Amino acid sequence: MKIQNQINLKSFSSQDGFISNYQKLIKDVVLPYQYQVLNDNAEGAEKSHVIKNFINAGKALLNLDVDDGFYGMVFQDSDAAKWLEAVAYSLVVFPDKELEKIADDLICIIKNAQDKDGYLNTYYTIKDSDKRWTNLHEGHELYCAGHMMEAACAYYEATGKDTLLEVMEKNAEHIFSVFMNKDSFLFQAYPGHPEVELALLKMYKTTKNKHFLELAEHFINVRGENPHFFADEKAKRTWSVWNSIPDNGEYAQNAKPVREQSDATGHSVRAVYLYDSMADLAGLTDDEELKNACKRLWHSITQKRMYITGGIGSTVHGEAFSVDYDLPNDTAYCETCASIGLMFFASKMLEMDVNNEYADVMEKAFYNTVLAGMQLDGKKFFYVNPLEIIPGIAGVAQTHKHDLPQRPQWYACACCPPNVARLISSFAQYAYGENDKTSFCHLYADGKINFNNGNQIVCKTKYPYEFDVKFEVCDVKNQNSEFAIRIPSWSKKFTITKNGKKGTYELKNGYAYISICKGDEILLKLDSNPYFVYPSTKIPDLSGNVAICRGPLVYCMESVDNYEDILSLCVNTNGKIKVLPFEQDLLSGTTPLLIDGYKIIQDEDLYSFEKPKFIKTKIKAVPYYTWGNRGINQMKVWFSYK
Amino acid sequence: MKIQNQINLKSFSSQDGFISNYQKLIKDVVLPYQYQVLNDNAEGAEKSHVIKNFINAGKALLNLDVDDGFYGMVFQDSDAAKWLEAVAYSLVVFPDKELEKIADDLICIIKNAQDKDGYLNTYYTIKDSDKRWTNLHEGHELYCAGHMMEAACAYYEATGKDTLLEVMEKNAEHIFSVFMNKDSFLFQAYPGHPEVELALLKMYKTTKNKHFLELAEHFINVRGENPHFFADEKAKRTWSVWNSIPDNGEYAQNAKPVREQSDATGHSVRAVYLYDSMADLAGLTDDEELKNACKRLWHSITQKRMYITGGIGSTVHGEAFSVDYDLPNDTAYCETCASIGLMFFASKMLEMDVNNEYADVMEKAFYNTVLAGMQLDGKKFFYVNPLEIIPGIAGVAQTHKHDLPQRPQWYACACCPPNVARLISSFAQYAYGENDKTSFCHLYADGKINFNNGNQIVCKTKYPYEFDVKFEVCDVKNQNSEFAIRIPSWSKKFTITKNGKKGTYELKNGYAYISICKGDEILLKLDSNPYFVYPSTKIPDLSGNVAICRGPLVYCMESVDNYEDILSLCVNTNGKIKVLPFEQDLLSGTTPLLIDGYKIIQDEDLYSFEKPKFIKTKIKAVPYYTWGNRGINQMKVWFSYK
Repeated sequence: MKIQNQINLKSFSSQDGFISNYQKLIKDVVLPYQYQVLNDNAEGAEKSHVIKNFINAGKALLNLDVDDGFYGMVFQDSDAAKWLEAVAYSLVVFPDKELEKIADDLICIIKNAQDKDGYLNTYYTIKDSDKRWTNLHEGHELYCAGHMMEAACAYYEATGKDTLLEVMEKNAEHIFSVFMNKDSFLFQAYPGHPEVELALLKMYKTTKNKHFLELAEHFINVRGENPHFFADEKAKRTWSVWNSIPDNGEYAQNAKPVREQSDATGHSVRAVYLYDSMADLAGLTDDEELKNACKRLWHSITQKRMYITGGIGSTVHGEAFSVDYDLPNDTAYCETCASIGLMFFASKMLEMDVNNEYADVMEKAFYNTVLAGMQLDGKKFFYVNPLEIIPGIAGVAQTHKHDLPQRPQWYACACCPPNVARLISSFAQYAYGENDKTSFCHLYADGKINFNNGNQIVCKTKYPYEFDVKFEVCDVKNQNSEFAIRIPSWSKKFTITKNGKKGTYELKNGYAYISICKGDEILLKLDSNPYFVYPSTKIPDLSGNVAICRGPLVYCMESVDNYEDILSLCVNTNGKIKVLPFEQDLLSGTTPLLIDGYKIIQDEDLYSFEKPKFIKTKIKAVPYYTWGNRGINQMKVWFSYK
Repeated sequence: MKIQNQINLKSFSSQDGFISNYQKLIKDVVLPYQYQVLNDNAEGAEKSHVIKNFINAGKALLNLDVDDGFYGMVFQDSDAAKWLEAVAYSLVVFPDKELEKIADDLICIIKNAQDKDGYLNTYYTIKDSDKRWTNLHEGHELYCAGHMMEAACAYYEATGKDTLLEVMEKNAEHIFSVFMNKDSFLFQAYPGHPEVELALLKMYKTTKNKHFLELAEHFINVRGENPHFFADEKAKRTWSVWNSIPDNGEYAQNAKPVREQSDATGHSVRAVYLYDSMADLAGLTDDEELKNACKRLWHSITQKRMYITGGIGSTVHGEAFSVDYDLPNDTAYCETCASIGLMFFASKMLEMDVNNEYADVMEKAFYNTVLAGMQLDGKKFFYVNPLEIIPGIAGVAQTHKHDLPQRPQWYACACCPPNVARLISSFAQYAYGENDKTSFCHLYADGKINFNNGNQIVCKTKYPYEFDVKFEVCDVKNQNSEFAIRIPSWSKKFTITKNGKKGTYELKNGYAYISICKGDEILLKLDSNPYFVYPSTKIPDLSGNVAICRGPLVYCMESVDNYEDILSLCVNTNGKIKVLPFEQDLLSGTTPLLIDGYKIIQDEDLYSFEKPKFIKTKIKAVPYYTWGNRGINQMKVWFSYK
């Protein structure tokens, strides 16, 4: 059974609840702040210059003087694109003429930066047009184009305005003409950083232009056919961005054709962006071979290379996947963008195969790593999301330089902050799905959803801090209408009632399928008890450890809550976990847990012959996504237990 | 109370026991094998070329054609020096005319490589004499000179032959003239890699030439006075060995003058070679300020930055000390040479202050990391000594590339193998010490020792596998003679009997002081029970773990002994540890332990909601120094416990 997620943007509205609060934060704080950053008006933040780059590219095309040239990373353009995309999503939920005007003006600037032939990229336009398409390995032209295509589709859907969409159609046709020419060296080329593939598929769905499907399919199919393409390309050119040496094909997932791949390897963001596009294409074209490759890669990630927080890419070396079961907590990389990409991939897998294993991971990644990526006030961001922070070591030891104890304001390489903004603003596209007969709820969020199939449902919930989820059926298209609700695998028990009575439903692959009529009220009660999670013994770093969760939230312990020392704590898994009252003033509103445990009392020696004493104590835990919001202090997710 | 270790080489002889067997292995296997390597005759080993380098340097001095020039590291000369030094020690224990002839011939080659002014270094002599002394930062001239001085002293003591000693006296005087010239830029210079300081102090003790004491003192005192010396030097020269950039002074312990240093930092071998020379000088000159600096640095290492195995330098980045309590097991560096250097430092601290805290660490480093550095057959070597090896991750993951599951044959940078050889061959110099009144036994080794103070004692023991140590007093100098035996802190109980009766002794700082007469038989019985060691809760990586030891031996578990899976094992610290019978055929003779524990039974998921089952099992452990001798398999020292 196939379904469609990525429901129409305008079909969801929400005024209240956890997700809505986050969307308000994006609108009120994050988007204005990021716009300041893009304009270099944010004090203390890294210089961006991205809007100036677009202005300068426009000038360069007119042979005007470009005083301050190009500044930033070769992929700087994408920061503006992701911001625009987030604005589009936000405008749907919170119409805002002023913000829309700012976005329209930016789009005008972007349009002016497009060359006559449709080419659009400020780095090359300002610096050297002759270098176009000569460095797919490092150059990020297709990556930037992809992000602008995503922005164009979103802005068109949100506002009905097609200026940017036309720009990007022209751009996509230009790329088609460059890369689909069988006589060109570039016919065997594929992007160093996958992104344009998934964007072209969005463009295809928005415009129905088959060239875009064909081009996406080409880029996916040609990847790894010549595993040495980047080396061949390097041999042909005389310039370089970082002078990087093409590797064995792991880093950019091009060691072999994608249909033959089984292990999730290399740069984790590249990987999941690629897998997302593969899954999307497999669904669109009913490509079983490609679908099977996606399933193998999904299994490789989620059964062997993923943290409990939905973090992926465990090593700083290449921001990459490591080998199976190499999941260190303190030196973890777990880039925020990688977990966002994992959500993309999960959502596409769900479209082919409705199964809670995909939605569970999507939820895990969202409520833990993605949310942890942003400070609670929306002003600072983590790129890297470790599962253990010990000040004095974290950020200091050579091996831990990347694991910071507090969120920095902005990054020179600023991919994560706008990515979080666009993800949160478009949450509904991951929460719901549909086909002709059935409407699906993958994730729970307070708000109203109008499905294309005619069903209208209002969801009321204080999830993820309360576990009653009420669905009011406002309208249905026909008598056969069906609503399918995910039952998360972490919920050891659950009940479903319809109109106050025990509901009948069919449980299939972790979804409860319920027939619905107009006026029905369905109440899902999930398990509100905190629970322990035990790691596989195959993960060397977690031997003998346990983590504590409640609902989708992984909890962590911070020393600020635990007498300034969490290293000497140990959990009693035969004891109790008390759910403390929800505190509105704690960490923007949270429910702490109080866990029975022990304090290990040890003498001063580095190594002692005396068995330590275990003194009973209570350990306070808070959700992982809230960590690092109260100054520098110790944090851990996994604890030894007795 | 000051004492003198480094007893006269010729005063110790041994035919039997654990140490003697190792010394035989050095003589029969290691020295001949290493000589083959030095001559590029060892199949499969990295090319050395070191002897050819000396021959070529001699030719270069005569302006003869040097066909194959210089090959190897800039410090290649030191491999020959360390081999010669090991040969010297071995010749004392096992006189061997043939080996002595080979050494004499090599010394002749070395002598011919010395320039008229006393300069000796093949890299510079062959490649470019003008570069002499222009790159203290990377150039290793003083390092190579130091090792050759150590060889010269040892060879003179062992054989009475002074050819090499004369060469190195001339060399040391040359260095004196270069570096003690107050008008020269080099007057503020100090070696990039400390070594010459400790060697000059040996030269001073051997020759009584005060220039050598003065020069050692100068190098120690001037270090860090100008923390930017290496940068200043770099600015003056146009060449480089590795184009390395002078760091903040941590790497080479030159951030501040040595008397102001408190934390053990930087490249761990450099550090302990420096601290060894500081301690030696402090003892020789009664320099309290320097002694206090040594005590602070000792404390920094042994109370905050040392593994249970006596391994130091926890990070591969710069082969260096990390920050306090950053002691990862799986990515540990723990260079073999660093533990050898730690033994040097410990021995010098003991000379100033007889205390078992120094001898205990010396013993720990020797029986665990130093011995682990060599395969049991003497043919392969570890440079890096991790405390956990999981095949599939170890040696494969980017962060674990340096942690190999098996010993390689030889290294391009071959400092460790000959260092192990010279250490084992000169074991007695660490085992014994003396002053006028008292003879000291720091480490136990079967054999006879003639102290300079006139006492003659025979030690009989099967240590470290049996824990009775018998001392027969063959002769004493006078009626006030005293024998002091270290009581290791790991021994929870011990008894001392003299001539079969309970002995009277004074226990002071972990040493039992006993008055002795000719004919006395003293029996020390140490605790033969295996014991658990618990780590400080300040070490993040060891939270909730335990290690198992017996005597000085740290034990480890290998999967070959434990059903091919040690990751699911957990120790029962309330259970028993059974000492299995000594097996002559197991790992060159060892006593395995059988430990009560549990096998953790967990379902297949990466993260599971079900509490694992703990099935009682027995865990077999073998001494850490024997690991990796039975093919590639898992190894761990620390285990979670219940």
